[in-house]
Amino acid sequence: MVIVGELINTSRKAIGEAVEKRDAQYIQQVAIEQAEAGASYIDVNCGNKVFEELENMRWLVNTIQEVVQVPLCIDSPNPEALEAGLALVKHGTPMINSITDEGPRFDAVLPLVQKYKAKIVALCMDDQGMPDTADDRLRVVKNLYAKLTAAGVKDEDIYFDPLVKPVSSVGTAGVEVLETIRMIKQQYPGVHFMCGLSNVSYGLPNRKYLNRLFVSQTMAAGMDGYILNPTDKGMMGLIYAAKTLLGQDDYCMGYIKAHRKGFYPE
Amino acid sequence: MVIVGELINTSRKAIGEAVEKRDAQYIQQVAIEQAEAGASYIDVNCGNKVFEELENMRWLVNTIQEVVQVPLCIDSPNPEALEAGLALVKHGTPMINSITDEGPRFDAVLPLVQKYKAKIVALCMDDQGMPDTADDRLRVVKNLYAKLTAAGVKDEDIYFDPLVKPVSSVGTAGVEVLETIRMIKQQYPGVHFMCGLSNVSYGLPNRKYLNRLFVSQTMAAGMDGYILNPTDKGMMGLIYAAKTLLGQDDYCMGYIKAHRKGFYPE
Repeated sequence: MVIVGELINTSRKAIGEAVEKRDAQYIQQVAIEQAEAGASYIDVNCGNKVFEELENMRWLVNTIQEVVQVPLCIDSPNPEALEAGLALVKHGTPMINSITDEGPRFDAVLPLVQKYKAKIVALCMDDQGMPDTADDRLRVVKNLYAKLTAAGVKDEDIYFDPLVKPVSSVGTAGVEVLETIRMIKQQYPGVHFMCGLSNVSYGLPNRKYLNRLFVSQTMAAGMDGYILNPTDKGMMGLIYAAKTLLGQDDYCMGYIKAHRKGFYPE
Repeated sequence: MVIVGELINTSRKAIGEAVEKRDAQYIQQVAIEQAEAGASYIDVNCGNKVFEELENMRWLVNTIQEVVQVPLCIDSPNPEALEAGLALVKHGTPMINSITDEGPRFDAVLPLVQKYKAKIVALCMDDQGMPDTADDRLRVVKNLYAKLTAAGVKDEDIYFDPLVKPVSSVGTAGVEVLETIRMIKQQYPGVHFMCGLSNVSYGLPNRKYLNRLFVSQTMAAGMDGYILNPTDKGMMGLIYAAKTLLGQDDYCMGYIKAHRKGFYPE
């Protein structure tokens, strides 16, 4: 299970302000908290201020790496910002978030994946936009898989993101994701998955509750990576418990440890 | 989604006492509460007092039917007790819990399924005992399916129970169930599923939490029937929410209604 800690994102108010003020201490605290909570990667996203993105990315990557050794997930739609961050990475193998099968984006990001031997989050999206059905997604996955592996990217370094849409607008949005995971696992058993959770519950009440439930459903289908807040005990408690039920927790020790740490208040 | 309300079971202390005292009011209250909470069937189980089982079964069936019209699930390993209950059923189509592929049990229960045109819970168990793996379960399912359908039982009247074991004793107990559901769905798309939840979390803390999580995982795999306590708001809230995420809730109205009724305290 790969957990990408999502908190260092300048679209979050406190982070945006800390970056603007160059408040290294606050950024480092958030990085440390995520690492201690079990993040496998620390996401770095400063894409909401386009003109300062490269400079902010460099400062963030350096600042975070002063205090944590957890590898970074360099997160931007802008290939130049990706490279600005990747060039400074010094701990472990970085992850790039993300590539798509949109022509220019694919061509600009692929060389970075190769140069930095990075893990790559591949969004199920191409020049025709965001797909609706599992079949549409699989068409994009097939093309992306063929092109990435032909370029030397290994199966285990690819993290397909099926792109989750709100069930409040399309009722089948959730099942299409489950179906996509099953189809990809059947055809490409060596690849991984990644998804964010903010979309699925959009427009509905008790969003945290729905997001956690969606994690348990997608984990049951084979999803093995999430971009989320690892300091959310309710979410992490759910992941520990789900692993136990899915046979991924030897002697239930991860679950029992989480129980003893008070992850399950009921 | 079929919910069999599990509360009327004489192995529960209050129910056992009420049956002994012929306290019809208490039994009826429990039946009404389950019906109002959304039970599709009311389970009737008085198998723990073997010598009084037939008499108790008759009293319970009559007592419950005085106040609810929800069909009954007549629950016993003893074919005579099953028939004692079935003969008195007057509301809708009953369910029989359960048949297995154990020779004598199969031969004794099948005629009851035919005579009462009942829905039948078919446990994945045969003369070799309880199977461990999904493949073992599918072997039992194949035999049971062949024999039941040859005897005229319709696909939609069969509810396969994969038999859930504790993950604390066999770590893969949960995934084997998920895999069994997927394999059965692929091969026999017209049949249904049923499972109880008390076993999966046996020996672990926060059992309610784990049981709910297991419902969300098995629902994501295609499970569509549970024997549970329908007056447990946490559990029913989870089922409403899981249906929404699985595209089984038009316009999310079931979920929003549950939210308004206070099913999600957070």
